[in-house]
Amino acid sequence: MVKQQRAARTRESLVRAAAEVFAEEGFVAASIAAISERAGVSPGALNFHFDGKTALARAVEGRAAEAVRSITRAGGGAGRAGDPLGALVDSTYALQRLLVGDVLVRAGFALGADVAHRSRVDLRGQWRLWAEESFGAAARAGQLADRVSARDAARLVVAVTAGLEVLGAVHADGADVHQALTRIWSVVLPGIAAEPQETD
Amino acid sequence: MVKQQRAARTRESLVRAAAEVFAEEGFVAASIAAISERAGVSPGALNFHFDGKTALARAVEGRAAEAVRSITRAGGGAGRAGDPLGALVDSTYALQRLLVGDVLVRAGFALGADVAHRSRVDLRGQWRLWAEESFGAAARAGQLADRVSARDAARLVVAVTAGLEVLGAVHADGADVHQALTRIWSVVLPGIAAEPQETD
Repeated sequence: MVKQQRAARTRESLVRAAAEVFAEEGFVAASIAAISERAGVSPGALNFHFDGKTALARAVEGRAAEAVRSITRAGGGAGRAGDPLGALVDSTYALQRLLVGDVLVRAGFALGADVAHRSRVDLRGQWRLWAEESFGAAARAGQLADRVSARDAARLVVAVTAGLEVLGAVHADGADVHQALTRIWSVVLPGIAAEPQETD
Repeated sequence: MVKQQRAARTRESLVRAAAEVFAEEGFVAASIAAISERAGVSPGALNFHFDGKTALARAVEGRAAEAVRSITRAGGGAGRAGDPLGALVDSTYALQRLLVGDVLVRAGFALGADVAHRSRVDLRGQWRLWAEESFGAAARAGQLADRVSARDAARLVVAVTAGLEVLGAVHADGADVHQALTRIWSVVLPGIAAEPQETD
């Protein structure tokens, strides 16, 4: 039991160290030596747990996918029942927070765009699907202006979040990215939301 | 004279080969050997013209910057005088076409976001400035809705174009990216443009 706990802790250290090194140096430049050193684990122990760099990258992507699922699953909850548009807006902030604050998520998305690594997990596809479903629900709830297609609005949100990810990676400043998102929603929302209805 | 022409042609082959290898493999994985082989030039000749990989990357970025300037300079021209908003929309298509069709531009932008390379050219900054100037001019020409800030609209366009760059790099399909841009503008434009004025 203690042995299993220790093994789980070692795996966790390795996945986190790999994410840090991938995020800082990219997939190609990341070395097994740098990852095992960062995790405080011998290269032999790393090899016992993971069959090379690609296996580590896939573990990182798996963890990132879980984190994205936890955002989209929370979307329908807490105070946003019957407000799919609000839930979607919330989730864009939640994603940006993870991209800035959680190296597993940041590295997972970066690996998905890395020409040198072949991903099995489609994080961007997972995110796009959530945006499409949310806008679809918003349209059915009468929250979208008639002229706005749910699918096109989802394209816009996916492009914006991917763009902030690139721009955030360059500037690496969470406060800036959060503010940029707020300013962008201030331009986009009035253009896509339905006019408030008179209630009788 | 013939010698100078030959030298210029060799430099051109090297810059283009470097852009191709950077775009395909990223800065770190790109090897001098692969670049010189792609250019059909000996590694010694490469070294005569460029002092290593960073010098080649800077040459690529310089060429990308020229290409972006040619778009933004054309912005005020041909049929778009007095229509800064239309000129900006045109230039987003022109940029996407270059990102898909011109490997120098694609590699230049990718190098600007590559954690392993220190850029001297700020392509994204150059593009952002153009978007801000265009929206500023559009606001002064009465083309923007009153509630829309020119700076925020520019943020939106910069994020969208950076996002399409990432998504386009993954899918590598020019037609898709063009269509995505058209659909995104169909959502964004009605939200930011001023209502057409009655003329008397």
